Amino acid sequence: MPAAALIDGLQYANWSEKIFQQMRAGGVDAVHVTITYHETFRETVANIEQWNRWFERYPDLIFQGHSAADIDVAQKTGRTAIFFGAQNPSCIEDDIGLVQILHQLGLRFMQLTYNNQSLLATGCYEDDDTGLTRMGRAVVAEMNRVGMVVDMSHSAQRSTLEAIEHSTRPIAITHANPHSWHPALRNKTDDVLRALGETGGMLGFSIYPHHLQNGPACTLASFCDMIARTADVMGPENIGIGTDLCQDQPDSVVEWMRVGRWTKSIDYGEGSAANPGFPPMPDWFQDNRHFGAIRQGLKASGLDRATIDGVMGENWRRFFAHSFQP
Amino acid sequence: MPAAALIDGLQYANWSEKIFQQMRAGGVDAVHVTITYHETFRETVANIEQWNRWFERYPDLIFQGHSAADIDVAQKTGRTAIFFGAQNPSCIEDDIGLVQILHQLGLRFMQLTYNNQSLLATGCYEDDDTGLTRMGRAVVAEMNRVGMVVDMSHSAQRSTLEAIEHSTRPIAITHANPHSWHPALRNKTDDVLRALGETGGMLGFSIYPHHLQNGPACTLASFCDMIARTADVMGPENIGIGTDLCQDQPDSVVEWMRVGRWTKSIDYGEGSAANPGFPPMPDWFQDNRHFGAIRQGLKASGLDRATIDGVMGENWRRFFAHSFQP
Repeated sequence: MPAAALIDGLQYANWSEKIFQQMRAGGVDAVHVTITYHETFRETVANIEQWNRWFERYPDLIFQGHSAADIDVAQKTGRTAIFFGAQNPSCIEDDIGLVQILHQLGLRFMQLTYNNQSLLATGCYEDDDTGLTRMGRAVVAEMNRVGMVVDMSHSAQRSTLEAIEHSTRPIAITHANPHSWHPALRNKTDDVLRALGETGGMLGFSIYPHHLQNGPACTLASFCDMIARTADVMGPENIGIGTDLCQDQPDSVVEWMRVGRWTKSIDYGEGSAANPGFPPMPDWFQDNRHFGAIRQGLKASGLDRATIDGVMGENWRRFFAHSFQP
Repeated sequence: MPAAALIDGLQYANWSEKIFQQMRAGGVDAVHVTITYHETFRETVANIEQWNRWFERYPDLIFQGHSAADIDVAQKTGRTAIFFGAQNPSCIEDDIGLVQILHQLGLRFMQLTYNNQSLLATGCYEDDDTGLTRMGRAVVAEMNRVGMVVDMSHSAQRSTLEAIEHSTRPIAITHANPHSWHPALRNKTDDVLRALGETGGMLGFSIYPHHLQNGPACTLASFCDMIARTADVMGPENIGIGTDLCQDQPDSVVEWMRVGRWTKSIDYGEGSAANPGFPPMPDWFQDNRHFGAIRQGLKASGLDRATIDGVMGENWRRFFAHSFQP
């Protein structure tokens, strides 16, 4: 029987050889990495070109993942499979044909919104949520056709529920936590989590401090107890990890995420004027070498081995297997 | 033993269901199609999007070819494999990273020039030929690395000879004829053809009337005798067909090929003010249903079965097999 996979459902680090080596040191088999926020198609392609250079330069550490079978390849060859995702649909511009083009280039996840209204749906920071737009429904159908996961991590509630209903494949919320545990705007209500679980969708638990009870001071025990309770809400097969690790990023990057080119003002997103940058991570998870602590924490919270294996990667592996092929 | 493949090394038709059905009626297993001339990267992607729609709409007739193995798939499933190529490097702009991106999207051939000087090399209509540029040498190395064929059909002689020498893989002249048979500017000297053959490169014989002795009145016998003589010059394993079929295209398209956005004047290329558009094809080759006539003509010219099979497709199949993989 092959070893249980270790998969992270979302990272956006300031990538470097150091971080790729930490992935190996931590035994991470696959990571969904964000390659684009507000970038146009052409700018997104430039980001893929940069990834191509990393793949060429560090072939012993990382390679591009296209299908769930690449997780097996990663395990057999001792490398980390990198799966691409977009946190905003800017990369498809107003052109549905770019969904397939970006899938051909390896994009496997795309958020329909990033906080704001997009051409496709409503973001979680808008006052009014009008659900999926006309183009949104067309693009979800196209994403279903080619095998690109609808990710609603930064979307508003009605839009999220409509995406779950409209999509013919299970969708994902790759990085968020239950609102009942920590009432951040980005965290999700039990209604959303139940609808997600009932359709075979996945939630990735975030370790971004603004998503955590008590922020950076959140204890591992609290985080793992929250996971155990969410397993009861959604089903133990529909949950995984999505750390939202933004390691080594300068504050200019958090500003690009939040502000892009859409305003001339500053928007602090989940931060504040007093706390504008990346908050420090909790001491029990600083980088890719520390997934073992989460596994230990889940054991201490009383979850059984199969459930823990599912949360740490096997659930994502199964989800990838029925999500990425046309 | 599988049937000999029928492969056309270059077409740029005004694609339609009718033409795809003619490919099937003619038993054409694979075609290298031009998808871009002077288009930018983004415009080239829009052209690929259009191809994606044709692949989605006509799955029983055509599919996208990525490797030589797709020729076997075409033969087994009774469809035509479509391999993408560019007739000018406009699509990579000034960005070497776009070579791999376009290879990921299926581009398998790229001409370093189209008549004019490019960032990479000199076209056949320039007064002075300075050979490969600095970027040209870098891009040829990158094309070699990823598995994209250097095509010098529209390049000047020194540039062509330098590409043959600099490339670590055999290159191609996908659509041209020997200058000794018909002294068009686009046809190639025996020096070029010998250098091409000695390195395992391929020449595709063109049926574009401006490349033919006596133009549209060229006889099948003359065309096939020329092929037989070229087999002696280059080796029978280094020659194939590259019809340059531009079926159903309006004259506006020939103007785009010749003029692009590089001049405000009219340039007639291989035509003239008196004959500005697409000339009529010879009566023995009007469209994809008529490759059988060429096969018969080659037989009449005295070539043996193995040589004819090579010319009609097996040589391209072998060339594809060692050209398209990284």
